[in-house]
Amino acid sequence: MQNLKNLMNRIEPCSKEWQEKAWERLHSQIRPRGSLGHLEVIASRLAAIQGTLTPSVKKKLIFTMAGDHGVAEEGVSAYPQEVTGQMVFSFIQGWASINILAKHAGADVRVVDCGVAADIPEEWQVVHKKIGKGTANICKGPAMSREQAIQGLLLGAGLVEKAFLEEGYELFGTGDMGIANTTPSTAIVATFSGKPVSQLTGRGTGIDDEAFNRKVRAVEKALKVNQPDSEDALDVLTKVGGFEIAGLAGAVLGAAAVKAPIVCDGFIATAGALIACRLMPVAKDYLFISHQSLEIGHATMVELLGLRPILDLEMRLGEGTGSALAMNIIEASAKVLKEIKTFAEAGVTDTGH
Amino acid sequence: MQNLKNLMNRIEPCSKEWQEKAWERLHSQIRPRGSLGHLEVIASRLAAIQGTLTPSVKKKLIFTMAGDHGVAEEGVSAYPQEVTGQMVFSFIQGWASINILAKHAGADVRVVDCGVAADIPEEWQVVHKKIGKGTANICKGPAMSREQAIQGLLLGAGLVEKAFLEEGYELFGTGDMGIANTTPSTAIVATFSGKPVSQLTGRGTGIDDEAFNRKVRAVEKALKVNQPDSEDALDVLTKVGGFEIAGLAGAVLGAAAVKAPIVCDGFIATAGALIACRLMPVAKDYLFISHQSLEIGHATMVELLGLRPILDLEMRLGEGTGSALAMNIIEASAKVLKEIKTFAEAGVTDTGH
Repeated sequence: MQNLKNLMNRIEPCSKEWQEKAWERLHSQIRPRGSLGHLEVIASRLAAIQGTLTPSVKKKLIFTMAGDHGVAEEGVSAYPQEVTGQMVFSFIQGWASINILAKHAGADVRVVDCGVAADIPEEWQVVHKKIGKGTANICKGPAMSREQAIQGLLLGAGLVEKAFLEEGYELFGTGDMGIANTTPSTAIVATFSGKPVSQLTGRGTGIDDEAFNRKVRAVEKALKVNQPDSEDALDVLTKVGGFEIAGLAGAVLGAAAVKAPIVCDGFIATAGALIACRLMPVAKDYLFISHQSLEIGHATMVELLGLRPILDLEMRLGEGTGSALAMNIIEASAKVLKEIKTFAEAGVTDTGH
Repeated sequence: MQNLKNLMNRIEPCSKEWQEKAWERLHSQIRPRGSLGHLEVIASRLAAIQGTLTPSVKKKLIFTMAGDHGVAEEGVSAYPQEVTGQMVFSFIQGWASINILAKHAGADVRVVDCGVAADIPEEWQVVHKKIGKGTANICKGPAMSREQAIQGLLLGAGLVEKAFLEEGYELFGTGDMGIANTTPSTAIVATFSGKPVSQLTGRGTGIDDEAFNRKVRAVEKALKVNQPDSEDALDVLTKVGGFEIAGLAGAVLGAAAVKAPIVCDGFIATAGALIACRLMPVAKDYLFISHQSLEIGHATMVELLGLRPILDLEMRLGEGTGSALAMNIIEASAKVLKEIKTFAEAGVTDTGH
């Protein structure tokens, strides 16, 4: 707990002063004022985060955090639990969606075993940090202990901080892998929003009506059995979270602690980001939401965070795929701020509009 | 006219057979079916356009078409006409938004003088194809002659076809530069949609209430004076179009003729695309809309075309900036189709969801 408090104490707001300077430059560039819309918002936030008018987000790293979920035994997913481990294998082989899209974005991918049920062979190129062999079934009790939740948060934070400080990564992304993990994510957004579970439950990987009803009942039961305290984000994470969700939340805290921009993926990664920002609201200064997920509860998460998703491509895959695509737009925004000339620099007639 | 008919006769539908094959592969990849949303739609369309399961859109070219508009004298823009030529200078210097974003996308930019009012020095690295020194004022009569409209269409088509056949470009983008060109674009969408002009008129580069009212009245007057025939797209282009809008429309026809994908920018470039697709509806098979512009009439254009914009970043700049950003997503989609492994290839348990 002491380490977690230390981490959170190190998180400071971004620089509003640099943000204002960035807006001044953006407003004097040879184009109508505001004409680059959300790119300008991103650019000004990057300036505020890095404290410069020449932000750099060239070196990029995506953490794909994997974990399993005891609640899978309630039949809430279309896929068996063994798929989590199989997908981890696909990630390290470079076969999966995140590999292709991260490579396209010029980003590295680091796969983290936060709590996969299967044994992950030591020789696999994975960050081996298994907190447990999958969480406990949240329909029957808490997903994990409070100590394990803290362990997961510190794991995610530590990985980002180390990559920033020792390897020079400038922009981070989060992504998830874990069969059944839309179920705890739904429980998390239901707790924080107070909305009915049925309005927040989606089809995950593509379940039928029967499994959908089982999923709604499982989330309702998890909330009833555990009574997570919406005022205590650590309690929410402990009772209805997941090991990879803890890691994903920790990554946001770690990025905020070292003043690095971090972009979160869809439903599960945003659940993690929500936990992070409930633990430490100012962490939001460093957070970008990559895309609006098709998963129905994601819109409520976005609303709770009060950030505009960068993309809306009707995706619902996870792994960090949304983060990878959004990184390109974030990088473009940095270049917009730095490289487009001002009216004065270019000698173009400015009418101040 | 004969040349235009020849061009349109060469345009054929894309291959529905390759599109189906693409969907088969997309549905067998190691991820939930449909989970990459709109990327999959783009990928399947690329397969249909190029007739392959391994589409390539690596070599990219954006045409930024420039022209002036006689209607500028009605006081419909926040900027004086001289800015068109100044911005052309900025483009060839590499100072402007399109230069920065195209470079980021790995795309080349070719600036075309379709009809800038100012003399463009011969030594400038511009495609010198001036049709006229700006169009006539559409509040007083037709923007151009029917011959000039055809000349503009053939110009745009010829540039794309040549770049495809002789230089190996695989993906094209369109963009515009021209003070006052949201005014003819508004007249075009008003003609095709039949909606009231006031519902389709935006603030362009950022005009005040007074200029806004002048702009609405100018478009209404242009429609009344010219009576463009919504069933005859060439008549619409002639009477209320622009030289660069003709070029932008032609580019879409040229891409369709050689079976190359083309992505259009915002309000003005989409006005051009709309003209192209009214002239030859099957050209739409080759067209992508890069983004939803903030310019209010753009949503109606998108509706008329029936295509989903790839991005929505609240942009309203032009130059091809939206095309440049969307090219990255289109390229990602091609890689999704080609590179993500199937369940069979990767040995992952498939439950068919």
